[in-house]
Amino acid sequence: MADIIMRRDPGEPRPILIPIVFHSGYGHTARQADAVAAGVRLVADAEAALVPVEDVDQSWAVLHAAPAIIFGAPTYTGAASAAFKAFQEATSRAVMAQGYLWKDKIAAGFTNSGSMAGDKLATLIQLALFAAQHGMHWVSLDLPPANNSSIGSAEDLNRLGYWLGAAAQSNTDVGPERVPPEADLATARHLGRRVAQVTLQCVRGREAMGL
Amino acid sequence: MADIIMRRDPGEPRPILIPIVFHSGYGHTARQADAVAAGVRLVADAEAALVPVEDVDQSWAVLHAAPAIIFGAPTYTGAASAAFKAFQEATSRAVMAQGYLWKDKIAAGFTNSGSMAGDKLATLIQLALFAAQHGMHWVSLDLPPANNSSIGSAEDLNRLGYWLGAAAQSNTDVGPERVPPEADLATARHLGRRVAQVTLQCVRGREAMGL
Amino acid sequence: MADIIMRRDPGEPRPILIPIVFHSGYGHTARQADAVAAGVRLVADAEAALVPVEDVDQSWAVLHAAPAIIFGAPTYTGAASAAFKAFQEATSRAVMAQGYLWKDKIAAGFTNSGSMAGDKLATLIQLALFAAQHGMHWVSLDLPPANNSSIGSAEDLNRLGYWLGAAAQSNTDVGPERVPPEADLATARHLGRRVAQVTLQCVRGREAMGL
Amino acid sequence: MADIIMRRDPGEPRPILIPIVFHSGYGHTARQADAVAAGVRLVADAEAALVPVEDVDQSWAVLHAAPAIIFGAPTYTGAASAAFKAFQEATSRAVMAQGYLWKDKIAAGFTNSGSMAGDKLATLIQLALFAAQHGMHWVSLDLPPANNSSIGSAEDLNRLGYWLGAAAQSNTDVGPERVPPEADLATARHLGRRVAQVTLQCVRGREAMGL
Repeated sequence: MADIIMRRDPGEPRPILIPIVFHSGYGHTARQADAVAAGVRLVADAEAALVPVEDVDQSWAVLHAAPAIIFGAPTYTGAASAAFKAFQEATSRAVMAQGYLWKDKIAAGFTNSGSMAGDKLATLIQLALFAAQHGMHWVSLDLPPANNSSIGSAEDLNRLGYWLGAAAQSNTDVGPERVPPEADLATARHLGRRVAQVTLQCVRGREAMGL
Repeated sequence: MADIIMRRDPGEPRPILIPIVFHSGYGHTARQADAVAAGVRLVADAEAALVPVEDVDQSWAVLHAAPAIIFGAPTYTGAASAAFKAFQEATSRAVMAQGYLWKDKIAAGFTNSGSMAGDKLATLIQLALFAAQHGMHWVSLDLPPANNSSIGSAEDLNRLGYWLGAAAQSNTDVGPERVPPEADLATARHLGRRVAQVTLQCVRGREAMGL
Repeated sequence: MADIIMRRDPGEPRPILIPIVFHSGYGHTARQADAVAAGVRLVADAEAALVPVEDVDQSWAVLHAAPAIIFGAPTYTGAASAAFKAFQEATSRAVMAQGYLWKDKIAAGFTNSGSMAGDKLATLIQLALFAAQHGMHWVSLDLPPANNSSIGSAEDLNRLGYWLGAAAQSNTDVGPERVPPEADLATARHLGRRVAQVTLQCVRGREAMGL
Repeated sequence: MADIIMRRDPGEPRPILIPIVFHSGYGHTARQADAVAAGVRLVADAEAALVPVEDVDQSWAVLHAAPAIIFGAPTYTGAASAAFKAFQEATSRAVMAQGYLWKDKIAAGFTNSGSMAGDKLATLIQLALFAAQHGMHWVSLDLPPANNSSIGSAEDLNRLGYWLGAAAQSNTDVGPERVPPEADLATARHLGRRVAQVTLQCVRGREAMGL
């Protein structure tokens, strides 16, 4: 990752690196995280880094340097997984107590669970509240409602109808090699691309203003 | 409704009347309300009364006398409809300021919107917070997750995956004579029946304790 | 605890035992849990059992047998602590997968944090959603708004203004021997007593109906 | 307002106009809105426009043209006021159905109520979900927790402990000429200034990228 940041001619627009901090218990949310990363990479000058919460202690410097961080967790019993929550709590010391190092970064979030709704909104709200505690700016999914009329289908982007972030639904008896379905992965890619685009605008704006 | 309450032999178990206060903009939530009422009526000694928010000013006495009230509203732009919210606010004077007349009543809720999820959880939370402000007890849907595996289907009860209350999804280009689908109406009936059963238990318990 | 349940003459009203499952990182939420337990014990025929989440594996049988369970967790970074969330997730196997053993139990919740509001409402909502996933009935705090006028004070019950459950605020530089303040402990006692009273009504009602 | 936008030399940085759409039932939230506007005006090149929801039908063009919109509503019975919700619903036709005209604008929010917490978080979440449905980016308050230690006080910025937006507490028996207190008005000014600063960064970034 250091390579990406260092190798460039002076004057060239600086590429951005967007870490995706996520937890996945069975691999389904990891596939969603991969799709978010693929979406980030669709944007010129943007690169993604996947950071499983298990590796976060080796990744604080990357997170602190990034202009945006995307958060992802499965929804278990109506909230983000305990493993992800432990990461959230680790930021109290590693980020907040160091002087709110994530202030003004862009943030966004995604979640997966077995049910269509399945209290996933509660997890997305949890992620947005967490970002707000850090003074981050929250980027929404920005996809219109879909799969909500007689001409809609489960193949639609945003088939589940969320706006605060990207949601996926994975049948609980099917492995991550087959679910979440393509519609939900495409929705995740959309989020990644959007976050990269918005982040570039903010970064370029700060550069233009000499901040 | 007075008839239902009055006509009984002394010593007979007193029937209960459960009002369903709801708003429906286009008729879909009204169909859901009808299904909740049908569920209530499946229980011996329980009767339901539909109270559109437009008629609430003629219905305060019925609401005050009831051992349980079920709330229903469509989800518009991520929250209960403004028409339902106006009813919520009317209870400040008509119920709270009169001495918290709804304290210890049973409460439950339901909502309908066009999308599968569609921020419906936010409306159910809004209804539960409202009930808590009144000191009411909130009865959950009590249906396991469904439509969440390769053997599940959109015909399952609780196909959308909610637990705080009953949810329905109605295609936005289809009239209320055809949607919400039967699975969501059956889910609504389930909620009505459950609320009636739980309410009877609480009422009989208070009678047994001489309260 | 077995003693409480076993030692009684036939025909005597059966006492109820209400477990309080809680996590406390620094001892403040433990004091709140103690106060909830003291409130339960104010009610004749009601006993409380404190179950730290660290001990839950030895306590499943007690939880399964109880007519009510009260949940408590500190609010860290905008949600219940990871330690409490791990307990929530453990119930997937230990409770849900065994046939939803907590269905129809009474539930209630409490939380503590450093700030007046401090996203504590998010934790209370998380606890209520969790209870709903188990098919439990949620009992609200039932205290009117307080500390909200020129004659109110920080000594009022419910000084913080919550209704879904009991909230406490503990200064972050003061040990649990001195905070949360008495007003918040009294609020917690109120919740405990109320849950015991409502639970007795439901239990007596089921007995009266032969359920 | 047209003046502000038009009168400038070519090449000069274009000033931005940030409308504050709000409802106030008794004048307290209006004072909070005034403070947010004052905060916006602290930023060079930024101007604020107060838009009471009662006037929104004359203000759609201003809202559509703005790079940011700040939303404010009192918290009544646990959610934004019905009058504000009616405005939210009006955007379905006036904004969403016209092609999601508010997509990618900056958004932020504030709320006032009588209690310290008083379910204000529910209103802030409602505003953030609404903004997300429009595809807007949500700017957080970015103030650390305060009034949460033995050296804190009710004069602290963010004395109530919110992060998703700005909150105020107004005693219910005191008129808007005296409450909300200065700490809450200063918190509101902080939000207004922050939104203006972030908005300028995004606007300048889009200009730099030729968007």
